[in-house]
Amino acid sequence: MEQQKLILITNDDSVHAKGLHSLVTVAKKLGRVVVVAPDKPQSGMGHAITIHHPLRLKKSNLFDDVEAYSCSGTPVDCVKLGIYEVLHSRPDLILSGINHGENSSTNVLYSGTMSAAIEGAMEGICSIGFSLADFDANADFSATMFYAEKIIRFVLTGQLSNHVCLNVNVPKRELEQIKGMKICSQAHAYWADRFEKRMDQFGEPYYWLTGEFSDQDQRTETDLFALKNDYVSVVPTQFDLTAYTHIPLLKSLENA
Amino acid sequence: MEQQKLILITNDDSVHAKGLHSLVTVAKKLGRVVVVAPDKPQSGMGHAITIHHPLRLKKSNLFDDVEAYSCSGTPVDCVKLGIYEVLHSRPDLILSGINHGENSSTNVLYSGTMSAAIEGAMEGICSIGFSLADFDANADFSATMFYAEKIIRFVLTGQLSNHVCLNVNVPKRELEQIKGMKICSQAHAYWADRFEKRMDQFGEPYYWLTGEFSDQDQRTETDLFALKNDYVSVVPTQFDLTAYTHIPLLKSLENA
Repeated sequence: MEQQKLILITNDDSVHAKGLHSLVTVAKKLGRVVVVAPDKPQSGMGHAITIHHPLRLKKSNLFDDVEAYSCSGTPVDCVKLGIYEVLHSRPDLILSGINHGENSSTNVLYSGTMSAAIEGAMEGICSIGFSLADFDANADFSATMFYAEKIIRFVLTGQLSNHVCLNVNVPKRELEQIKGMKICSQAHAYWADRFEKRMDQFGEPYYWLTGEFSDQDQRTETDLFALKNDYVSVVPTQFDLTAYTHIPLLKSLENA
Repeated sequence: MEQQKLILITNDDSVHAKGLHSLVTVAKKLGRVVVVAPDKPQSGMGHAITIHHPLRLKKSNLFDDVEAYSCSGTPVDCVKLGIYEVLHSRPDLILSGINHGENSSTNVLYSGTMSAAIEGAMEGICSIGFSLADFDANADFSATMFYAEKIIRFVLTGQLSNHVCLNVNVPKRELEQIKGMKICSQAHAYWADRFEKRMDQFGEPYYWLTGEFSDQDQRTETDLFALKNDYVSVVPTQFDLTAYTHIPLLKSLENA
């Protein structure tokens, strides 16, 4: 008999998020699930790790029949604690999400959800981050759950390198409106940042980061293009940031 | 007459760090410098941005003849606030560091220093992150300053794409022991993580992240190889994380 797959799940919206519970529901069909997720929202934490404060890890009873822990740290801390302090062994798969909100394009760099998946890939464990383009706390995750199951089954067959993770984004559409999945590249789109400056009760200024997302990428094979056209986008994502094509151009610096 | 270059400088060790002050000393020779740096250490913050708390920005008089601000947020927040709230214009160059400690190999993902430089590249501004392989608060930055000046002069000639940044690491060596610069790729090396579990005064456990860095990469063109052989490593670094070579392998998922 085939051994049951061991699946570690985290997210960045916290252990209470509906998206996490939806992903656990899917994964329970496919293996033994252990949850280690942040005890509070950690959106925008990117690949941050906690090194200046001690980390706390507490058993959680928020999930029926699933071993679960809440952690005081970031999503990447959760992956590390999950592997080294909870499981004391390597899971077959790491899942992150389902995020409340899109993590397409360059948002992958700011995303705690995707940084957890990237950390999994750095550990040499197949990893997938899932995000739904809907920030609502009560968003409808049913279409994402449908595609998540397909994608997890595919990855569990072993066809993905364990040093690459997947960034899966799902448009805010009913299941029957979604046209299918597209394997994509990360769109070159950026935030046109802006800050809202306000005054506190002492007359001191404070700032909120805001802005608008601007897609100037003309390519049709990007994740943003797929999402706009009602496809689920799947981007194979790596942690080697070397801009290899720029190495020859820089060689003259060696003689500067 | 050529217009003076505008140079925005940040770091992750805080506005008080010797490495930041050393970098300002170099940059002042090459243009008009404005500093926006964290008000407290932000090591390991990766590409985190502050979205759940308001940001504070305060004028600092820690630098002679240099406009400077301390910020309550992360290094990436400093870059965004620097461009959009302090300068209200695009600098010619963004510098980050000099970090107290190495940011070679996969540490680029955890590094606040390098995430600030990557954010600069996302903004389309030439950016360089500098790190010295010495955690000492009073480390000797003179060799790093020597190479930083060479590299900044090179980048200011406009030979680097403004969507790529440089990750510069300097070995802990006297200037005359350093053999030169090498253009490198990011080594595939990882932390073998471990947690120190301790008990607090209430009998509750807490954890400190620790571990050892393990370099299994056999290639000789990596940043770790260069550093071990007493070279300054320079890695052109990009923010497109797409694993392009894996796209064909995944195409069958579109029909799953």
